[in-house]
Amino acid sequence: MDDMNKYIEQNRNRFTDELFELLRIPSVSAQSEHKPDMVRCAEWLAAELVKSGADHAEVMPTDGNPVVFAEKIIDPSAKTVLVYGHYDVMPVDPREEWHTEPFEPVIRDGRIWGRGADDDKGQLFMHCKAFEAMCATDTLPCNVKFMLEGEEEIGSEHLYGFCRDNRDMLKADIILVSDTSMVSMDTPSITCGLRGLTYMEVEVIGPDKDLHSGLFGGAVANPANVLARLVASLTDENGHITIPHFYDDVRELTDAEREAFNKVPFDLEDYKKSLDIDDVEGEKGYTTMERTGVRPSLDINGIWGGYIGEGTKTVIPSKASAKISMRLVPDQDFNRIGELFEAHFRAIAPASVKVNVKFLHGGAPYVAPTDMPAYKAAERAITDTFGKKPLPFYSGGSIPIISGFERILGIKSLLIGFGLAKDAIHSPNESFGLDQFFKGIGTIPLFYKYFAE
Amino acid sequence: MDDMNKYIEQNRNRFTDELFELLRIPSVSAQSEHKPDMVRCAEWLAAELVKSGADHAEVMPTDGNPVVFAEKIIDPSAKTVLVYGHYDVMPVDPREEWHTEPFEPVIRDGRIWGRGADDDKGQLFMHCKAFEAMCATDTLPCNVKFMLEGEEEIGSEHLYGFCRDNRDMLKADIILVSDTSMVSMDTPSITCGLRGLTYMEVEVIGPDKDLHSGLFGGAVANPANVLARLVASLTDENGHITIPHFYDDVRELTDAEREAFNKVPFDLEDYKKSLDIDDVEGEKGYTTMERTGVRPSLDINGIWGGYIGEGTKTVIPSKASAKISMRLVPDQDFNRIGELFEAHFRAIAPASVKVNVKFLHGGAPYVAPTDMPAYKAAERAITDTFGKKPLPFYSGGSIPIISGFERILGIKSLLIGFGLAKDAIHSPNESFGLDQFFKGIGTIPLFYKYFAE
Repeated sequence: MDDMNKYIEQNRNRFTDELFELLRIPSVSAQSEHKPDMVRCAEWLAAELVKSGADHAEVMPTDGNPVVFAEKIIDPSAKTVLVYGHYDVMPVDPREEWHTEPFEPVIRDGRIWGRGADDDKGQLFMHCKAFEAMCATDTLPCNVKFMLEGEEEIGSEHLYGFCRDNRDMLKADIILVSDTSMVSMDTPSITCGLRGLTYMEVEVIGPDKDLHSGLFGGAVANPANVLARLVASLTDENGHITIPHFYDDVRELTDAEREAFNKVPFDLEDYKKSLDIDDVEGEKGYTTMERTGVRPSLDINGIWGGYIGEGTKTVIPSKASAKISMRLVPDQDFNRIGELFEAHFRAIAPASVKVNVKFLHGGAPYVAPTDMPAYKAAERAITDTFGKKPLPFYSGGSIPIISGFERILGIKSLLIGFGLAKDAIHSPNESFGLDQFFKGIGTIPLFYKYFAE
Repeated sequence: MDDMNKYIEQNRNRFTDELFELLRIPSVSAQSEHKPDMVRCAEWLAAELVKSGADHAEVMPTDGNPVVFAEKIIDPSAKTVLVYGHYDVMPVDPREEWHTEPFEPVIRDGRIWGRGADDDKGQLFMHCKAFEAMCATDTLPCNVKFMLEGEEEIGSEHLYGFCRDNRDMLKADIILVSDTSMVSMDTPSITCGLRGLTYMEVEVIGPDKDLHSGLFGGAVANPANVLARLVASLTDENGHITIPHFYDDVRELTDAEREAFNKVPFDLEDYKKSLDIDDVEGEKGYTTMERTGVRPSLDINGIWGGYIGEGTKTVIPSKASAKISMRLVPDQDFNRIGELFEAHFRAIAPASVKVNVKFLHGGAPYVAPTDMPAYKAAERAITDTFGKKPLPFYSGGSIPIISGFERILGIKSLLIGFGLAKDAIHSPNESFGLDQFFKGIGTIPLFYKYFAE
C-alpha cells in the first residue's frame, strides 16, 4: 500500500480542489428551481469517474433526477463492489445562519465548510478518489460499479424503479455506502442499523379566509390552535407516540442486546453541552443512545400558519400546516405507519375543521449483519487506519433506499461512513474534516484488499 | 338637510375618486419599509382636511408615525366633536389570496375592494366628506377636531403620549369613531362594548442549531413539538383558558344581561355557512355571540418553525415561535394578563428548552353607556337613515386606544361604525359597500345636528 499512500499524499491538493468544484454546484433536490443543477452535477461526476479510470460512465435519465452509473471490470470472476452515494444536498435555510456561503466552500480550522461537504458529496468523493488511486497504482483488486443518485434527500423515489429496471447491470457482492457517521475519531464505528422513516404533511383548514381575531376569536376554531392541539396529542407525557398500533411491530431489545448496545462510549453531559441544552427529552425508560438507535420517534420538521412577519397582526389564520416525520425501527413498515398516522389524525380532528393528510416519503429500517465478509473486511481496514477496532453502531438516521436495495437487488449494504456529529449535516454550516476525508480515502483501498481476499 | 343630501349626491364620484387616492397609499404600519408611506398618507390627509374646510391642519410628529390634527372652530361655546380614525392598515399577506391588487382599489358588485377600504380609511373618510358637506352647505352645528393616527393596527403606542401632551388642544364633548361594524344593513347597531387585548410573542429554543431529525430524533426536545404542547395546554377541553388567575377580573353577565344580549338577531347556520365551517368551537356554556362579545379568548395569530418550503427536510428546528393574542373583557387588565401569561408560560416550559416571552401590545376593554347624549343622538341619526332603531352591540374586537382616551382625556367615545362582517377587514379581499360608505356620509351630519340640540 505504499505506492497508494504516496499517490494520495502527492495529490491531496488536487483532490480537495476537485471536491470544491463538486460542492459549488447547488444540487438541492427539494427545490425545483435547482433542476438544471442536478443534471450539471450528474454530468460532472460521470466525467470525473471516467478521468479516474472507469471503463465508461453514463448519466442515466429517470422520471426524476438522473443516476450516474460507471464501472470498471477487471475480471468477471473477481468480486464486485457497487458504490452507492448521492449527489443531491439538503436545502440551505435558515440561510442567514451560515457563516460563509453554503455553495462557496472554504477551508477553516482544518475543515471543509459548505453544503454537502459531508452529506454526501464529501463522502462519495472519497470513493471516487480511492478508486482513482487504486487505478493509478494498478492495485484495484475488485470490479467496481458506481451508482450515484440525485434524490436521496427527498426519498429516492425513482431509484427503486431504476434498480428494478437494471438488476443485471447492478449485480454485485456488496453495496458500499459512505453516508453515515462514526462515534468519534477516537472511537471508530461501522453503522449496522438504520432507522426507517415515514414523512407526512398535515394541513388543518378552518374558515375559508383569514378572520379578524377580535370579531371571531373565541367562537371559531382557530386552525393554528387546533393544529397545535392535535400535534401535541401525538405524544404523551412519557414520550410515547399515541397513534394506535404504532408500536405493534417494534422489535424490543433483549436485556443482553441492551447491555451490548449501551457499551458504546457516550457522555450525556458532553452531549448536552455540544447542543447547548440543559436537559434531554425522550421516551421514558430508555437511554439517549437507545432513543435514537432502536426506538421510533416523532418530530415536527416544520410548522407554519398565520402571520409570521414583523410586528403584530390580529388574525385567525384560515389554515395551518406541519411537516411531521417518524423514525422507524425493525420491523415497522413505513407504509403501514403512514396509514395509521393518517387514520388517527383524521379521527382526532374536531368537526370544526377539515384536515388534509399527505404521505411525502418513507423508507424501511435496515440492519446489517456483523458477521458478513464485507463487515469483517471493513473492520480490518478501519483497525489498520484508525488503530482501533470499530464498534458496531446503530444510527438514528435513515437511508430508505438501503432496505430497498436488499429487497430489489438482493444485495446487502455495508455502511462505512466517516462523518462525525459535529459535521452538522442538514444544518447551517455543514463541514467535513480534512482528516476525515483523507482517512476515508486511505481506508477504502484497504477494504477492497481485504474484501477481495 | 336637503342641500346637504344634494351636495353629497352631486359629489359622489369625486368622493370615491378621492378615497381611491387614499387607498393607493400602502400605509402598513407593521412593516418598517412602509415608513415613508405613513408620512405621505398623513400629509395627504392634512391637505384633504384643509380643502374640506378645516381652519388649519397639521402633521404632528411622534416618536412613531405622525398624527394628523385639524380643527374648525365655529363658536367657542358650541359643542365640540373630536373625530378619531386611523390611516394605517394591516399587512396584506397572504398576498396570493387577493383577487385584485390590495393597493389598487376597484369597484365591483357595488363594493370598493382594497386594503383599508373599510378599516379604517373608508370609514374615516366618511367623516372627512360629511365634514366637507356640512362646511360647503354652511350647516356645521358643532366645533370639529380631527385626530387621525398611523399606529392603531400596532397598538397606538405613541398616541397615548400624544394625548397626554395635547390635552387642551384635544378638549371635546365626545370622541366620534367609525372603526366598527353593524350587525347588518337591516339590523343597524351601535357598538357599546369592545374587548381588550394582550398580544404576546413566544419563542421556544432548543439545541443551538438545527439538527438532523434521524440522528437526534427521540432524544432531544424538538422546540416545535414543545411549542405545540405548551400552546395547546393554554386551553382546556372546555375551551377555558388555563392560565392561573386569568378569569379573576372577568365580569360575569347577570341572567337579565345575558337575555338582553342574546336578543340581537343571530343565525348560527348562516354564520357557519358564511365561514364555510361545519361547526363552531368555543368556551362551553356560552353562545357564539357571548363568546365574542363578553368572554375572553386566546388565539394563535401566527406560528412558525423549521422547514416550511417545498418538499421534505428532516430537521429538528433549533427554535419555534408563535404570536398569541388574548381578547379581554371588563374588568381584565391587559398588563396584568400579560404578566400572568408570561409567568405561566415560563412555568410550564420543560428544562429541555429555553423560552423567550415578549409583550407586543395591549389595550383595555371599553364600555360605552347607552344613556349618554352622544349615544342618543347617534340612535336618532341612524333611525333616520336606516329606518330602524339601532341595537346596542358588544363587539369582539378591540380598539385599545378608546379606553386610553377616557383615562387620559376624560372623554367618552361613541362608536358609530358602518362596517359589516363581510367586509373581511384584516383578511385578503377587504371591501366596503358603496351603500355603507354613502349611508355613513349621510348619517354623520344628522348626528352632529341632534348632538348640537
